[in-house]
Amino acid sequence: MPVRALAFDVFGTLVDWRSGIAAAFAGCGLADPEGLADDWRARYRPILDEVNRGTRRWGDFDELHRATLDALLDERGLELAHAARAALVGAWHALDPWPDVPTGLEELRAGWVTATLSNGHVALLVDLARHGRMRFDCVLSAELVRAYKPRPEVYLTAARLLALDPDELMLVACHPWDLAGARAAGLRTALLERPLEYGPGSPARPDPQADVTVADLRELADRLA
Amino acid sequence: MPVRALAFDVFGTLVDWRSGIAAAFAGCGLADPEGLADDWRARYRPILDEVNRGTRRWGDFDELHRATLDALLDERGLELAHAARAALVGAWHALDPWPDVPTGLEELRAGWVTATLSNGHVALLVDLARHGRMRFDCVLSAELVRAYKPRPEVYLTAARLLALDPDELMLVACHPWDLAGARAAGLRTALLERPLEYGPGSPARPDPQADVTVADLRELADRLA
Repeated sequence: MPVRALAFDVFGTLVDWRSGIAAAFAGCGLADPEGLADDWRARYRPILDEVNRGTRRWGDFDELHRATLDALLDERGLELAHAARAALVGAWHALDPWPDVPTGLEELRAGWVTATLSNGHVALLVDLARHGRMRFDCVLSAELVRAYKPRPEVYLTAARLLALDPDELMLVACHPWDLAGARAAGLRTALLERPLEYGPGSPARPDPQADVTVADLRELADRLA
Repeated sequence: MPVRALAFDVFGTLVDWRSGIAAAFAGCGLADPEGLADDWRARYRPILDEVNRGTRRWGDFDELHRATLDALLDERGLELAHAARAALVGAWHALDPWPDVPTGLEELRAGWVTATLSNGHVALLVDLARHGRMRFDCVLSAELVRAYKPRPEVYLTAARLLALDPDELMLVACHPWDLAGARAAGLRTALLERPLEYGPGSPARPDPQADVTVADLRELADRLA
């Protein structure tokens, strides 16, 4: 089957969360802002797993980011006022896209239906899209099923809402765990390499099982054409 | 509270379903294509009511349009092959917007978050948006709750997904029954007059309770500014 639509992971894949979050920590006057950004992000998969296992009730990214931020600051013995914590949570709504993204999305939209498929909630994705001038045909989110990737229902719901068979939908992501989840649900997969997600010296993350591996959205358009 | 986002009804409000559907009937060689289009559309509210009452299982617009088309053709004793019926159902995916819509949506998007809020399913709305070059920040649909407007959960889910209180969200629609449903759920309402929805001589449909009444999207932008 040909690929009829592209579903994009957002954090890391389309937007550079680390630079934006580090800048927000620096704005609070905290030392080692990159380290704080990495530490905060490292708490992301574990808290999602709690929701997926049912040991934590559903919470959207604003709630989960606040919980993990409070834990991080507590553990490091850092004091920060409520308003500053709220501003840090809000920083996830105003992250810049990687340079190839706004134009690349528009180019891909000419040939394929495009959608987000993020664990971020709808309102957060809308804010990011407006901030970064990223155009999608449709904003899809794990929030619509109240379970997080890599749970199969997230990917399968995206295919159903787009009226596609799973193998007509391709997930584009820079994280092999996400691509593996999509493949388990029957989707096609594209690894979009983002070697700067964790700054210079980020670990390589190949995915030999991906249908294609590309360096930017322009290359993805060329490879799918 | 200021209005933070606009949710748009689609069929009649943004797209001219009657011209497109009449053209599709004419393309099948049937007489009185406008009358057939009106008859088909008249079967819309009753079948949605069946779903909302629970006497009919959930079906998306493609399924409901096919059921009402088959009933219409049966009653009129009209023969039509399966492929022609499928093409008529598909015609609802390629309707043209009213002339003010593509530019007006873009203008409104500069000041407010914009979303569809239609009884049409997500894939249908994506097709219409792509066909008519209508840009929204987000495609929201009754399909996400599997109940149809004017059920309150449709409007309330839209507000929740946009992270807004109901009175921060304004429904824009040309049908007073839809606006009444939105108001009952706590939303603000804008009546967008579409005096040609049913062709020349369409009945007037005032809504004295609407927060604003406008003739096109340009006027809506001016009134909300």
